Amino acid sequence: MRKIYVIGIGAGDPDHLTLQAVKALNKADAFFIMEKGEEKSDLTGLRRDVLDAHVTGRPYRLVEARDPERDRKTSDYSPAVDDWRRRRADLYERFIVDDLAEDECGAFLVWGDPALYDSTLGILEEILERGAVEFDHEVVPGISSVSALLAKHRTGLNRVARPVQITTGRRLAEGWPEGVDDVVVMLDARQAFTRHLDQDLYIYWGAYVGTPDEILVQGRLSDVSDRIEELRARARERKGWIMDTYLLRRG
Amino acid sequence: MRKIYVIGIGAGDPDHLTLQAVKALNKADAFFIMEKGEEKSDLTGLRRDVLDAHVTGRPYRLVEARDPERDRKTSDYSPAVDDWRRRRADLYERFIVDDLAEDECGAFLVWGDPALYDSTLGILEEILERGAVEFDHEVVPGISSVSALLAKHRTGLNRVARPVQITTGRRLAEGWPEGVDDVVVMLDARQAFTRHLDQDLYIYWGAYVGTPDEILVQGRLSDVSDRIEELRARARERKGWIMDTYLLRRG
Repeated sequence: MRKIYVIGIGAGDPDHLTLQAVKALNKADAFFIMEKGEEKSDLTGLRRDVLDAHVTGRPYRLVEARDPERDRKTSDYSPAVDDWRRRRADLYERFIVDDLAEDECGAFLVWGDPALYDSTLGILEEILERGAVEFDHEVVPGISSVSALLAKHRTGLNRVARPVQITTGRRLAEGWPEGVDDVVVMLDARQAFTRHLDQDLYIYWGAYVGTPDEILVQGRLSDVSDRIEELRARARERKGWIMDTYLLRRG
Repeated sequence: MRKIYVIGIGAGDPDHLTLQAVKALNKADAFFIMEKGEEKSDLTGLRRDVLDAHVTGRPYRLVEARDPERDRKTSDYSPAVDDWRRRRADLYERFIVDDLAEDECGAFLVWGDPALYDSTLGILEEILERGAVEFDHEVVPGISSVSALLAKHRTGLNRVARPVQITTGRRLAEGWPEGVDDVVVMLDARQAFTRHLDQDLYIYWGAYVGTPDEILVQGRLSDVSDRIEELRARARERKGWIMDTYLLRRG
């Protein structure tokens, strides 16, 4: 049966790779790489560097595809995402069927940790449910962008015996989550932290963490909010894309 | 100035070690290892194996201490924890002052990720605030027990665009958190999931994940709850300690 590895390769620093990930890279016959328009070729290049550096004495094939465009104009979030996922599933399924022989092994390289705000595992489930192809799959955990951010700020995700919530910018814009004083925000295109300037919050923010472009800011939210907005806008303009994450801590 | 590395070494599988962690291990002159009574010598042994396997061509010193006992009888959680932290801080401070020369480098090896329910970073902050010794410190992120658990279950931490809460068994026993359908539970000595058998929940549970003793169970909570309780009791009796984590998913 075909075997698929979903390999977390960490949050941008090539040294985030685990020994387990290096071993899995060296078992794959083909790697499937999705090019995202907005990330330009930076991230695709980083993935190729990972393969160049760590796959040793073994030939491999690279299969590249362009990420389906998502309709970001519609206010109806879920149908647009469902449609995008379906088209991604079509691409992944074609990769598994067309580019892997029955006894071969393929791999998806995932930034960060495959468990955290990544669609690969859900899409592979969807393909298995469709039933057109069978495969075995194995997940290699990775250093998440959250762990990488907090390591750079030398702080913890949670406070002693306290809960923490991980959520999206979209949700934080709707209101502060109930029952928690520590909130990690992912995928925030709208700088939702600016909605909470009236609260006594401390922010640990980072963009491109682990890469040479890394930017880190921490401080009282009301003091550093403007600076983060400015840094974000400038970086986004310079590179054409931004990948940032932050922890907000209350009290 | 003295330099301290806080190195996440992953959740039990020696191959969780990152390349960054291996590099950091090879910079340390001394390693501080805390023996916990309840974990017997299993985990201390695993830490030593990591050093044996990855520190190459460089002598190092091992400094071991026994973890201060925590008063678990009192119902007053915070003062007992505060007292325990203070005594731990005393030990760490003594290690830095007594066992490291001014130009040397020391390291703490942390299971999982130093950001997630680990006290090392908070204790180092406390020592810096006391002001008796100065040092620079750097954090190396690790594969958390949460990432390791979810990789084995091949599922994500969050669902598409949805939030997730990470909390303790103590808190889950008090009630289901507001506003989330996905909850990760750490440090649950009391099997708090049994309080939520009336809900439509799916559980992804694991103990000793990544080690040869690994046990994994997933299923509808009402179907597998008894089995998890039994496996937990048996494993705890056999090994003398247990380290388990789980994700509860609603609906």
